[in-house]
Parts: sequence; C-alpha cells; structure tokens
Amino acid sequence: MKKYFAELFGTFWLVFGGCGSAIFAAGFPELGIGFVGVALAFGLTVLTMAYAVGHISGGHFNPAVSFGLWAGGKFAAKELLPYILSQLIGAILAASALYLIVSGKEGFETIGGFAANGYAELSPDKYSMQSAFVAEFLLTMFFLLIILGSTNERAPKGFAPIAIGLGLTLIHLISIPITNTSVNPARSMSQAIFAGGEYLTQSWLFCAAPIAGAIVAGLIHKALFDKA
Amino acid sequence: MKKYFAELFGTFWLVFGGCGSAIFAAGFPELGIGFVGVALAFGLTVLTMAYAVGHISGGHFNPAVSFGLWAGGKFAAKELLPYILSQLIGAILAASALYLIVSGKEGFETIGGFAANGYAELSPDKYSMQSAFVAEFLLTMFFLLIILGSTNERAPKGFAPIAIGLGLTLIHLISIPITNTSVNPARSMSQAIFAGGEYLTQSWLFCAAPIAGAIVAGLIHKALFDKA
Amino acid sequence: MKKYFAELFGTFWLVFGGCGSAIFAAGFPELGIGFVGVALAFGLTVLTMAYAVGHISGGHFNPAVSFGLWAGGKFAAKELLPYILSQLIGAILAASALYLIVSGKEGFETIGGFAANGYAELSPDKYSMQSAFVAEFLLTMFFLLIILGSTNERAPKGFAPIAIGLGLTLIHLISIPITNTSVNPARSMSQAIFAGGEYLTQSWLFCAAPIAGAIVAGLIHKALFDKA
Amino acid sequence: MKKYFAELFGTFWLVFGGCGSAIFAAGFPELGIGFVGVALAFGLTVLTMAYAVGHISGGHFNPAVSFGLWAGGKFAAKELLPYILSQLIGAILAASALYLIVSGKEGFETIGGFAANGYAELSPDKYSMQSAFVAEFLLTMFFLLIILGSTNERAPKGFAPIAIGLGLTLIHLISIPITNTSVNPARSMSQAIFAGGEYLTQSWLFCAAPIAGAIVAGLIHKALFDKA
Repeated sequence: MKKYFAELFGTFWLVFGGCGSAIFAAGFPELGIGFVGVALAFGLTVLTMAYAVGHISGGHFNPAVSFGLWAGGKFAAKELLPYILSQLIGAILAASALYLIVSGKEGFETIGGFAANGYAELSPDKYSMQSAFVAEFLLTMFFLLIILGSTNERAPKGFAPIAIGLGLTLIHLISIPITNTSVNPARSMSQAIFAGGEYLTQSWLFCAAPIAGAIVAGLIHKALFDKA
Repeated sequence: MKKYFAELFGTFWLVFGGCGSAIFAAGFPELGIGFVGVALAFGLTVLTMAYAVGHISGGHFNPAVSFGLWAGGKFAAKELLPYILSQLIGAILAASALYLIVSGKEGFETIGGFAANGYAELSPDKYSMQSAFVAEFLLTMFFLLIILGSTNERAPKGFAPIAIGLGLTLIHLISIPITNTSVNPARSMSQAIFAGGEYLTQSWLFCAAPIAGAIVAGLIHKALFDKA
Repeated sequence: MKKYFAELFGTFWLVFGGCGSAIFAAGFPELGIGFVGVALAFGLTVLTMAYAVGHISGGHFNPAVSFGLWAGGKFAAKELLPYILSQLIGAILAASALYLIVSGKEGFETIGGFAANGYAELSPDKYSMQSAFVAEFLLTMFFLLIILGSTNERAPKGFAPIAIGLGLTLIHLISIPITNTSVNPARSMSQAIFAGGEYLTQSWLFCAAPIAGAIVAGLIHKALFDKA
Repeated sequence: MKKYFAELFGTFWLVFGGCGSAIFAAGFPELGIGFVGVALAFGLTVLTMAYAVGHISGGHFNPAVSFGLWAGGKFAAKELLPYILSQLIGAILAASALYLIVSGKEGFETIGGFAANGYAELSPDKYSMQSAFVAEFLLTMFFLLIILGSTNERAPKGFAPIAIGLGLTLIHLISIPITNTSVNPARSMSQAIFAGGEYLTQSWLFCAAPIAGAIVAGLIHKALFDKA
C-alpha cells in the first residue's frame, strides 16, 4: 500500500508544483518566472519527490513512465493499474487544490485554460496536431531513455533523480510553446477536467503520444542498452 | 553549543541571501533577477549551508522544520526551544545587516515592505487569507515530506541538501505571488519586525500555517513512509 | 555496435533539445526562455544523456570531444571515424525532426537561420571572424579540460556528467551572442545544412576551431594534469 | 608546479566565463541573460573547474579563498604567495582574452566599465562605500564558511564543488547591484586594470573586504565547526 501513497503524493506534487507555478507565477508583471521558471518547477517536483519517495515506489508519478518501465522489463504488468489509479487520484486532488487557491484571488472569475495541454488553436504558439504528436512522442521517448539509462545498474548510484528531474526541465524548455508540454497523461487529464471544452476533447493526444513514446523507449532500451 | 551556532549562521544566511536577493536585485531595471532569481537564491542558501553545517546541527534553519522533524520522531522535544531561539536570533541579525546595507543606497528613505510576507491586500497578487493559509500549509507539508524522505536511511546518501535546497527553490517558484512565500516563521518574523504595521499583524499566519503543515507531514511520514 | 547507437541517440538529443529550445521557445513573447533557457537546455541534454548512456559509449556526442579525448590519450584512434559518423547521423536526424515539427506551425514559411552558427554578419551580435575563432577555440579547450579533469580517476566518482553538462550551459551563457555557440561540429553541420547559403560557407570555422581547441586541451591535460 | 597551473587555468576560467558572460551576454536586447545568467555563469566556472582540477590544487581560484583556508588551518602559509601569483596571472590573461574578443565586435570603440567592481558612483545601484564594504565582507565570510564546511571530513564526499559553485551563484544573485560582486581580489584587479581610472582607485576595497571576511570565516570555522 505504501508505494501507492508514494505515487499519489508524488503526482500531487508534480501537478501542484508544475501547473501551480504556471498558473500563479509565470505571467506576473515584470518579475514573473516565464517558461524558464515553469520548466524548472516541473523538473524540481520530480527531482525532490524522487529523492523523497523514490526508494518506496520507484518514483514514476506518470502513467507513461509506468508503461515505459513495463515495456523495458523493469515493472510488473499487474502493478500498472494500481499505479496509474494512484497517479490519477493525486493529480486530480492537486488540480482541486490549485482551484481552491486561485479562486481566492481578488478579481477571480474563471480561468480560460488552467495549465491544460492543447494543439492547433489551443497550442500556445499554434502548432498543428501532427507537430504536437511528434513532439510529445519524441520527448516522452527520450524521457524514458533517460529514466531507464540513469537507473541502470551500470550507471552511477544515487544520481538518477537529478538526471530525470532536470530531464523534465529540459523537456519543458523545448516544448511549452508547442503543447504546453505534457509527456504525462495524469498531468494532462487533471488540467483538462478543470479547463473543460475543447481541452477535454484534445486530451486523447496527451495520453496516446506519451504512452506510445514511452513504450518504444522501453523496447529500444531493452534491445540496445540494457546489460550492454 | 556548536549546533546552536550552526543554526544561527544557517538561518542568518537564509534570510540574508533569500530576502537580500529580493530587496537588492529582484527589480533592478532590465537586468533584475525577478522571482526566478529570488527562488534560486532562497534554495541555494539552504543547499549551501546544509552541506556546510548540516553534519553539525542537521541544518534546519527554520522553526517549522524543527517542529516537523519532532513530529516525525527525528528530533528531541527538549531541543526545540534552543533551536528556534538560535534561528530567530540569526534571522533578526540578518535583517539588521540587510537594513545596514540598504540604508546606504543613494536616495534611500524608507522601504515599504522589506521582503515581508502578507495576504489579502499585502499579498503580491492579492490572494485571500484562506488561499494564503492553504498554500503555506501545503507547501510546508511537502517541504517536510521532502526533508524526511530524502534524509531517510533508505534514500541515497549525500544528496539530501540538493533535494531540500532545490525543493525550497521550487516552493518559491510556485508561491511568491501568493504570500511572498514564507514556509518559515523565522524568516517571516525577521522581516515583519522591520516592515512593521499590518505586516506584523498578519505574521500569525506565517507561524501557524507552516508549523501546522510541518507537523502533519511529520505524522504522515511516520505513519506511511518511515521504515517503509 | 551498442556504443555507436548511444552516440547517435545522445547527439540527436543534444541537437533536438538544444537547438529545439532556441527555435521553439527562446523568443516567445513575454514568457520566452531567452539565452538563459537555451544555455540550460544545451547543458541538460548532455547531463541527462551522459547519465543515461555514458556508461556505454563514454558520452561524447560531439566530434571535438572525441578528438580531444584521443589527443589526451583516453580514446582509440580507430574509434574516431565510427563515433563521428554516429554523431553526424544523430545530429542530422534531429535537425530533420525539428524541421518536421516547426513546419507544422501556423504561418510557417521558411526560417532564416534555424539555430545555425555564424560570424561577422551572421554573428548574433556582429563579432568578427577572428573573435569567433578565438572564442570557439578557448571555449572548446576549457570544455575538454573539464571533461578530462572531471572523468580523471582522482576526481570524485559519478559527478562528471554534472560538471560537463553544466560546463556546456556555462559556455552558452558566455558565447551565444558571439557565434550562437558551437563547440561542436556535429551540432553546427546539422543546422548549417538546413539554414543553407552563407551559414554553410562559414561552417569550416565551427569544425576547425572546436577541434583545434579540443586537441590542445588533450595535450595540456596529458602534460600537466593527468596522473598529477 | 602542477597545482600552480591548475590555479592559473581555474582563475582564467572564472574571469573569462564570469566576466565574459556579463560583457557579452547580460544586456543583449530581449534575449540577454541578465544578472541571473551572470550569477549562474560565475558559479559554474567554479563548479566545473573544482571538479576538473580541484583534486590537484584544491581549487581556490581566488586569493581570498587562499587566505581564508590559511586562517582556518587548512593551507600552508608558504603556498600563499605562489597560489596568489598564479591566480593573478590567470585572471589577467583572461581579461586580455576578453579584450581580444570584444574588440572584434562591430562598432566597438571603448568599453566603459568592463566588468569591474565599484562603489558609490560606480556601484550599479549607487550603494555607498560602507554598504559595499559590509556586503563584500559578509558575503566572502559566508563563502568561506561554505568552503570550509563542505570540504570538512564530516561532510558528504564529492559534493563540495556543487555547494561552493552554487554558493558563488547565490552571492552574485544577492549583490551584483551593490558592487557588481567581487568576493575575489584577482577577479577585481583583472577588470580594474582594463577599466582604469576610478575603478583602479576603488580596487583597494575589493582586496581588503574579501580578504578580511575570509580570514574571519577561517577563525570562526576553526573555533566553532572544525572537528565539531
């Protein structure tokens, strides 16, 4: 049971910290943190919780990561469902906490997009569905190559949370303008529920592309790099 | 005695570096460091002093951290008072040093808010008291989960100051617009004393919410994650 | 064979992440990541893949690095050609993927410079060919001193990817205005091919200066610092 | 002899990278790195070279550090002169290289302040001489407390370059507006020589305050924290 709580808390922190920094602090006049700050925040949620509870659950905090580790032969199929459920619950609780806080801001009426992911007209810089799919697929694929490689028994011990967390920062530095960056279906669903409308309709892509990229990475790692 | 000096110096550095970066450098025209720079500065004060004196005092630098470690069964009750006194002395000395420096700036008359914390009309982005309480409670709770988890005997050795310091950076990336970010009663009191007025009146929240969040985290860690 | 795939994937990630962050996110209105974000992105591509596949191939991802390690007596001459071919293939595939994504942006017609390197009229801040050569030579020389020093058997174990990755971040913080920063012939060639014209003509400098600097560093390290 | 070359190369990199980032990249229109980028650059010069040659010379790269380690009982008096000479030579060579590059910029005539340190009318934000002295004294004192603490035998092994390098980043985040940040007489002298005039007259403070702060830190560490 403890590992499911670890995934729940970890995914809560990922969504609360990553999406929260975007909602509260990215666009503050003059002093706001911009995309660099949001990218750093997402990465640090994973770095911090991977050190805090990684030794309990492995520190996935992301259904695509669970699928990728399963494809790479590092995670049991029967754990997929409880892990993903824990992640979704944590993500949705975090989105609720964000709503609770932001609704207490003076002048608050409604927030258009929360920190939801989107393509085409909902892409921050208007990238097509095809561009969004390619970006999410490739970025999640490399995210899993980093995770599988840095946690490999031949890699230096103890450093994986740094590589993985800062890898997520890097992914956001590249792709916030394309899709607002998902690479994580739990993060995307939690925001789409609150953003609603078209964001919900588009959320299939932010499940399909990350999970597909993660599974391909798992297969690549098993074929090429594991026990190399 | 040495551990009390370590807490005093560490908390001095946290307030001098974190609040100092906000006062001196955040709003410099064109080149200023903004909230990203202040967030980085707060985190690096803890990262650096945790490596420097963490092996002497444990590196709390924050009354809420001392309470949370006590609730988690990692810190003796009889040490609470001397630790918190050392932290308060260090914080107030640091605020005095900041005043000494900033008063030597050309054109200096008085500074409205120093780097004090506030809610409602004193919140940088006008968040309500309820929003401020929820944010400070949750952020300190996760700060303690990171501290307790990354210093757990099953976590990788030596990396905790990175996780904890960058965790504090993350917390500031999320919440400077909400409360100017406390999660630390010593930091808040040291600034409220110099800022005065309403800032002093509001300082109860920046004691109550962080300490409550820290204690809840201590209990969660003991129940769920310790010796998992 | 596995090490060649590691170099191919690593160099793909360096170009896709580093140049991609520049193309997609640097100049986004208000919230863009600027040169700081691009510098961070380049460094993190190397930090992440060095932890992921460094134990397989050594993690060069850069022909100049392969030459420098060879000059320093740490890399076999017969491996130079296959490593450099793998790096070039990875870099060009990454540039193709970037083109695929950016061509799906609304209003896309053609992009002037991709993230190509240049001097004189093609230097971001109009630095001369001589300045560009000196900068690329010195920066690559120090990059190799960092690599050779931090991977030396007397250096702390496991930290080299942090030193090397953040070293590349530092190099970009210094020199994006001078040449858009190369220090890596594979990165430069991959962009010059897509940028075309004068960028292709100037690409000799971004092969010659980095490789010369790297070889000098290899000789310095062997003479002064190895088995010191 | 090898350790003197290590200090020469390390201090070259500190001045070339730190001051270079300020000269070339801080104020680039729209995309410039600002004080955050300069702060990161200074810190990363030390982080990278401490991993690269720290095992050869100890990685001082700064006369104040050599004095502080001597006061703390960690460095032999007879090594002070050759270390400081090596540092000054490296710093001045770096300033020359910066001049060589920047003089190749289109439209270059003369540069007012290079990246020199100053107080009163030469302070970026017009802080008085007294404020400048207090800031430089306190910041160097804490820099040495970080160095002495994180390299202590009871601190975690291998992490000191991270704590020390990011400590220098933090120091710059706080104090660039006050003095342009010295805490290093070699860095200050190398720039004052090229900036000339009043900058040279003021350079006494950037020798006296850092060295005094460093020596006080050495004595504090020896009395309070060493073999605690």
